Amino acid sequence: MPNFIKKEFPKDEEAYNAKILIRAGFIDKLMAGVYSYLPLGLQVLAKINSIVRDEMNKFGGQEILMPALTPKENWQQTGRWATFDALFKVIARDKKEYALGATHEEVVVPLAQKAIFSYKDLPFGLYQIQTKFRDEPRAKSGMLRGKEFMMKDLYSFHASEEDLDSYYKKVIKAYLAIFKRLELNAWLVEASGGTFSKYSHEFQVLAPNGEDSIIYCKKCHFAQNSEINGSKKGDPCPNCKAALDISAAIEVGNIFKLNAKYSEPFSLKFKDKDGTEKIVLMGCYGMGTSRLMGALAEIFHDDNGLLWPTSITPFAVHLIVLGGNGENESKEIFEHAQKINRQLESLGVEVLFDDRKDKTAGEKFAESDLIGIPVRLVVSAKTGDKIEFKKRGEAKAKMVDFSFVKKYCNGNK
Amino acid sequence: MPNFIKKEFPKDEEAYNAKILIRAGFIDKLMAGVYSYLPLGLQVLAKINSIVRDEMNKFGGQEILMPALTPKENWQQTGRWATFDALFKVIARDKKEYALGATHEEVVVPLAQKAIFSYKDLPFGLYQIQTKFRDEPRAKSGMLRGKEFMMKDLYSFHASEEDLDSYYKKVIKAYLAIFKRLELNAWLVEASGGTFSKYSHEFQVLAPNGEDSIIYCKKCHFAQNSEINGSKKGDPCPNCKAALDISAAIEVGNIFKLNAKYSEPFSLKFKDKDGTEKIVLMGCYGMGTSRLMGALAEIFHDDNGLLWPTSITPFAVHLIVLGGNGENESKEIFEHAQKINRQLESLGVEVLFDDRKDKTAGEKFAESDLIGIPVRLVVSAKTGDKIEFKKRGEAKAKMVDFSFVKKYCNGNK
Repeated sequence: MPNFIKKEFPKDEEAYNAKILIRAGFIDKLMAGVYSYLPLGLQVLAKINSIVRDEMNKFGGQEILMPALTPKENWQQTGRWATFDALFKVIARDKKEYALGATHEEVVVPLAQKAIFSYKDLPFGLYQIQTKFRDEPRAKSGMLRGKEFMMKDLYSFHASEEDLDSYYKKVIKAYLAIFKRLELNAWLVEASGGTFSKYSHEFQVLAPNGEDSIIYCKKCHFAQNSEINGSKKGDPCPNCKAALDISAAIEVGNIFKLNAKYSEPFSLKFKDKDGTEKIVLMGCYGMGTSRLMGALAEIFHDDNGLLWPTSITPFAVHLIVLGGNGENESKEIFEHAQKINRQLESLGVEVLFDDRKDKTAGEKFAESDLIGIPVRLVVSAKTGDKIEFKKRGEAKAKMVDFSFVKKYCNGNK
Repeated sequence: MPNFIKKEFPKDEEAYNAKILIRAGFIDKLMAGVYSYLPLGLQVLAKINSIVRDEMNKFGGQEILMPALTPKENWQQTGRWATFDALFKVIARDKKEYALGATHEEVVVPLAQKAIFSYKDLPFGLYQIQTKFRDEPRAKSGMLRGKEFMMKDLYSFHASEEDLDSYYKKVIKAYLAIFKRLELNAWLVEASGGTFSKYSHEFQVLAPNGEDSIIYCKKCHFAQNSEINGSKKGDPCPNCKAALDISAAIEVGNIFKLNAKYSEPFSLKFKDKDGTEKIVLMGCYGMGTSRLMGALAEIFHDDNGLLWPTSITPFAVHLIVLGGNGENESKEIFEHAQKINRQLESLGVEVLFDDRKDKTAGEKFAESDLIGIPVRLVVSAKTGDKIEFKKRGEAKAKMVDFSFVKKYCNGNK
């Protein structure tokens, strides 16, 4: 595996998440707000996407994949061709104009129209995990605000307000389940932007480097984005009168009851039980999965590097072998380590195996801390038939048998 | 699941692959050369991608994911900003210019540079499965030539010609393994475009609607693209003198020895064993995975619809229950079918379960043939405690026990 790890933090990044993810070899910066996912980073992103997919499928969400290249006409239909500033526009050789999808209402509504005729066809939800493009003038927050980023966007279609309400609640449950699996403590926060109800909802994770600010009540769990609530720390909670807290936060999800906002311009209608034509009601539910990777990096780290939750770590264990260059003793140690690697892999454990001979123990340990895999195993001349086992977050290592490692890994699958 | 199946072929498509995939509800056309993948189509695409990924990983390819939005400067560096006609160009609000990635040498070379210092860092291969954009003026071949499409692109980096040669051969093996798993009979064909060796290589599948034409010898397996070989049917093979055949074909892969073509403009160098600086040699290896889906649709179909190979079918079995509306007898039949569905799912069999009550047997069978899942199971008043089992490609159904279905499905996993 090519080694993209760097000795120093990059100088052209302000955001901690981008700095640490670049230094630890998870991502590479192509330009402001645009990153490549390197092998380690793509593993993390794939695991986040897979958890999101799993929770979407559980409540019956149907996965699709819509294009990034979208026709001007669809955006004119909703008026957003002129008003959506962050829309990247493309002019083709034949002078046809396109927008790069920044969100997909303009594509999913005409698509859903092809499958909606009667109330019997409702409700359903279509989602995708797809690359989005936004012309962000200030892309300084690393993975938290990119010009190109990965997003899960779900759109739901309903015959009635009640049905939209109940679906909306199901999505909230699924979102909370996702954040729990990612070990993120997310607040459900009221925010502006509701077109149907008064507010939209955001999911916010408290973090010093967050772009948002939220007012929240630890007692009754009331929480609002500071953009709609000007309270200060210590002000009484409007709900239970306890003292409010305020914190910077990272928005990791945003959900809206759209009502007829996008079904209206496309005349997305259905024939109801009573035979009349009615407008389809919609909800939309976003979650930036590359932003989640950035949020996780902001939260799960210490001075030495990253500390990935077990559910999304790129590998379950980091197996390091130490030893000289080709002497007999060292050959035996390497063979022993290779055997452990094979045994773990045959048990289905994902192992990052560091058997490089041109790196010192100090270099290997520093890289291991930087990468942040939850368990470090060391095999060396000193370990004999034991293995040195250390959790990433803990200071002390201990000597264990292979059976301990096996049991530990099975318990964390 | 919303039903995107259509009674008729779409009128705005010329290519068979797009016509059948749209009609059977696998894809939706957003505009010429740009399609959405619907739930069934995304399953097929995901399975193709997963086979490709598996074979890339087997020989040590490292998966990454590069951006679609790429800086103008990188394309100027290789001269392709001015010469690559199919490059979609984007001008941002701040007047900065970008290209939408049509291929990724301009991104992967500067990226690889960050991990290449010495001969010890070589060789390696980086690949991605990613959305590509090309401004195709004539996008009339459906999934075979899109403006936006999915591609696996692998780039390899080497210290010597010998090493590039041996890697190139490994990739050919991996490509042939992929096509075998997709049940495609692909010819390895010499084509123009070699910058290092005289020819590049294409993988071509014989198909009446293919955009390419190849000359091939059944006896010695010599094959060349007609663009470099003007022979006619019956002409003697230049290799073994047997009579040549000619056929339309679909290009499903294209591989190049790039030599220093792209490492030169970026000064991608390494320090060799003898201490001197040398230029890195490269190979690049493309495979359009959405095009493969189109090619599979062109090849695996009959008059009634699609016939998916078992390795990429969206579901392993199509379970259909027939019966009236809510009478006691029908209730029992539906419960029996639901039980079979649950049993199959608990065995890990992917089941498409058609328990709709508002469709006739004829409609259900026609849709089933159109979708093309390899096995159709029917439960009805007539089947009793047996199940009607029919393979998609065969005319005759037979009555079987559940144990037969179980055994059959296990054998095809």
